[in-house]
Amino acid sequence: MASLDVTSSHPFGAVPLTPTAFLDRAARVFAAREAVIDPEFSITYESLWDRCLRLSGALHALGVQLGDRVSVLVPNSHVALEVHFGVPYCGAVLNMLNTRLSGGELAYIVGHAGSKVLIADEEYLDLAYEALTPNPDVRLVVAGDRGDYEELLATARQRHHEVEDENALLSINYTSGTTGSPKGVMYSHRGAYLQALAMAAHADLDVNTRFLWTLPMFHCNGWCFPWAVTACGAAHVPLRRVEATEIWGLIDRLGVTHFNAAPTVLTMLAESASAAASSHPIHVATGGAPPSPALISALENLGIEVTHLYGLTETYGPAVICEWQAEWDAENPSARARLRARQGIANMVSCPLRVVDVEGNDVLPDGATLGEVVMRGNNVMLGYHRDPEATDSANLGGWFRTGDLGVLHPNGYLELRDRSKDIIISGGENISSIEVEQVISGHPSVLECAVVSEPHTKWGEVPVAFVTLRQGAVLDAEELRQWVRARIAHFKVPRSVHFGELPKTATGKIQKYVLRQSLVGVGRDTERSAKRANSTNGA
Amino acid sequence: MASLDVTSSHPFGAVPLTPTAFLDRAARVFAAREAVIDPEFSITYESLWDRCLRLSGALHALGVQLGDRVSVLVPNSHVALEVHFGVPYCGAVLNMLNTRLSGGELAYIVGHAGSKVLIADEEYLDLAYEALTPNPDVRLVVAGDRGDYEELLATARQRHHEVEDENALLSINYTSGTTGSPKGVMYSHRGAYLQALAMAAHADLDVNTRFLWTLPMFHCNGWCFPWAVTACGAAHVPLRRVEATEIWGLIDRLGVTHFNAAPTVLTMLAESASAAASSHPIHVATGGAPPSPALISALENLGIEVTHLYGLTETYGPAVICEWQAEWDAENPSARARLRARQGIANMVSCPLRVVDVEGNDVLPDGATLGEVVMRGNNVMLGYHRDPEATDSANLGGWFRTGDLGVLHPNGYLELRDRSKDIIISGGENISSIEVEQVISGHPSVLECAVVSEPHTKWGEVPVAFVTLRQGAVLDAEELRQWVRARIAHFKVPRSVHFGELPKTATGKIQKYVLRQSLVGVGRDTERSAKRANSTNGA
Repeated sequence: MASLDVTSSHPFGAVPLTPTAFLDRAARVFAAREAVIDPEFSITYESLWDRCLRLSGALHALGVQLGDRVSVLVPNSHVALEVHFGVPYCGAVLNMLNTRLSGGELAYIVGHAGSKVLIADEEYLDLAYEALTPNPDVRLVVAGDRGDYEELLATARQRHHEVEDENALLSINYTSGTTGSPKGVMYSHRGAYLQALAMAAHADLDVNTRFLWTLPMFHCNGWCFPWAVTACGAAHVPLRRVEATEIWGLIDRLGVTHFNAAPTVLTMLAESASAAASSHPIHVATGGAPPSPALISALENLGIEVTHLYGLTETYGPAVICEWQAEWDAENPSARARLRARQGIANMVSCPLRVVDVEGNDVLPDGATLGEVVMRGNNVMLGYHRDPEATDSANLGGWFRTGDLGVLHPNGYLELRDRSKDIIISGGENISSIEVEQVISGHPSVLECAVVSEPHTKWGEVPVAFVTLRQGAVLDAEELRQWVRARIAHFKVPRSVHFGELPKTATGKIQKYVLRQSLVGVGRDTERSAKRANSTNGA
Repeated sequence: MASLDVTSSHPFGAVPLTPTAFLDRAARVFAAREAVIDPEFSITYESLWDRCLRLSGALHALGVQLGDRVSVLVPNSHVALEVHFGVPYCGAVLNMLNTRLSGGELAYIVGHAGSKVLIADEEYLDLAYEALTPNPDVRLVVAGDRGDYEELLATARQRHHEVEDENALLSINYTSGTTGSPKGVMYSHRGAYLQALAMAAHADLDVNTRFLWTLPMFHCNGWCFPWAVTACGAAHVPLRRVEATEIWGLIDRLGVTHFNAAPTVLTMLAESASAAASSHPIHVATGGAPPSPALISALENLGIEVTHLYGLTETYGPAVICEWQAEWDAENPSARARLRARQGIANMVSCPLRVVDVEGNDVLPDGATLGEVVMRGNNVMLGYHRDPEATDSANLGGWFRTGDLGVLHPNGYLELRDRSKDIIISGGENISSIEVEQVISGHPSVLECAVVSEPHTKWGEVPVAFVTLRQGAVLDAEELRQWVRARIAHFKVPRSVHFGELPKTATGKIQKYVLRQSLVGVGRDTERSAKRANSTNGA
């Protein structure tokens, strides 16, 4: 008997996967629990659900149709959370905007996304006007005391679009685009649903969690945590500005249990005069760069446990997690730090990642052979919005090319060595900027640093360090170079050291391209990146 | 602009949801970690993966084709775990058999499933022969020292069937069927994948978990924990026999952190002479009946935290979880016990359940209005195997009728009042057997009890209690009736009390139908259930 009398029909619910289902559930089973805890605006899950459905109704009344885009320019307020449900409840596509971008950049994105509506906080009204100058047909909705957002919600009817195709477009997140125009990364309902489940499981969220919004919700849809936290019926604690005293105060007053932040934000917290060991455990996920051993140890002393994650906008945020194995507790501190600095393994819903050579073959998992990280699976983007060429060029036989270079350790854990554009090629040798940075960060006087390449007539490129010292610390370039020289190969020692503040993105990532530009000028850097992209493809 | 240039294609992986992906991942990223910890048979994830792929190859070599069924009659050994991956790796459908059934019952199931192969542990060889007597074409594979299972694996090639349709049939679990023939509940790859993710998140499993297999893997595929535990890279600790001294020994020696068990098993553990407070926290999920306050408190003193779950074979096990809200810790002990005894809320991947009246309308969520619990969603079965009539009659407008009666509390939590077939109708009044049982269980001399209906000429039915006393306890029927009379309405007080052991299923559930049969005879009970099913439909 080869076939069964089973049809593909599912009489009791072939229910599409969509993250809005998490709020539908929370509104039913956690109706009276706090969804948002904010001194100025606390609401229950029943109320959040009602507001999101009325936001959906309001958008519909403004003419937003199925598949239309809605751009949003707000800080981490309740509005940022509401659009993550209200926009898809209307059948529309969410486009969160980075509030640190210029008016011109925002105008490009709003135009490229083809948005019908822009929801902006009154704090960013000038920016919003600039964004709409070349997009005059976009309807502006303003959130805040003097805006019309609340009035629109108050007068709207609830509207609940039923998702039919779980592979439909849910959101578009534009990458920062260090060269060329920003690219619109497309997320599906299915992908976001699964990534949210993985985040809830890996971050150990539950109904008693209080989640602080340090990570901007415009960054990979807050790594899908607007949906993950809601899936657990946990409380969202909005945070309009990332400020150490405010964060320590919220941890203390509201009993914050979880937050996500880049290492630079964590450094700021650990160094803050307000830092005080918490009376309850706090779980933090960090990514963008490996947290340094000194930082991890400082945070542990403050009651903060750190998990290291890795991912890209194209992978719904953290597709990779440095899952800590209890046996590693027995290792010595430096071995533990090396293990923690690894990016880790594919998360629960991800396909195991691969590290491949230029021909697309897996490299040896020997912890030494460098290759490019490629990924595929439900939590990899649908593609770049209106850019089939870029989508194609990121595609390696059905695998997404991350542009990140790394090694696979024998235990299956990934360790990044560099962005392909950040690696330094000196006299034919690859120098991992991350490796040199880790040695520099180990110096007790160093707060943070970045290592980039500088063009050199003889060697092609040489490494150069940019360093921020701890308050009150004194250190000169030669002393630091000796520290590095004592620890790694001589050709990796920075030729020069520049002391000062480091330029950062809205999400706290150090902008290496700005540092490179400061060395060689804008035109050169773009040219170099283009050339490097070719060499990574074909070398 | 109404439509987007988005196609339904997904260039980087529209990867089907299948629980075998969890082992593919674990084999890559937790290769050297222990998958199975068993004094007699410990293996790593790499080795488990290899064995499962070779089991798949061996089944293929025996002629098992895509969609064929493979029945399995084994205790909670590594073989039980291996078939949960090896059978779907072959593209076949897993049919786990309850080892407590009779040969005749097993023969019916194997025949009805149309299995090609029966894998049986040598411990159950006689039973297997009985099962195969009317099914002579089924190939028998025997696991154990004298069997051919190991030899087949040793000589087989790895085979990895790629799942194309995530809605395809993964397994068939036959319900115990207190009346009529057993029914084959069909699970899909997608449903099992999602339920496993929910179990991993709700049970707080992670890579450092050591999961003890007290719950039989033939019961709702071990509630999908073979897949959930593997998804986390945690260790499986098999347990061939549920025996208190052995369990306490494993908790101590192997550092077991999690297990699942019916309240009767937990009672046995708490009462055991080997019981000793664990030095590490243990998380237990229990279902089948609400754990009594006395049991919960005894377990807490032993370092065991209890979560109450509810579900049916048709809902992949626990679709409902009594999620504990930290605020409830402040309630007094009896209020806490009442909250814990509730079945709870739809789990993270479930659609919110409904409680409906006979016309299918939602009852008021007032904690008082009785209705039937209905469910739908991805983790509700595809239907009953080769029984479209039974599938149809369980279908209420796309919702699965559980046959359980309960109330919905204002906070969205479900409280079961009875199985529709267990409720006692006396003088026109509904008596919840569970309510009476909870009062009886509160008596310090009572170990466990069951209340069932007895036919009565005047009242139609009256409640009757069956009670097991604690060792050494002395209590007579009249004393117990007075205890009950002091606490609930007089018409709910059992007319008679029978002391002794209670009959149980393989999964530790009390068999009320056996108790009813002891009062009225077999034929009567069947007749009564049939009549009751009608009255629930139409009354």
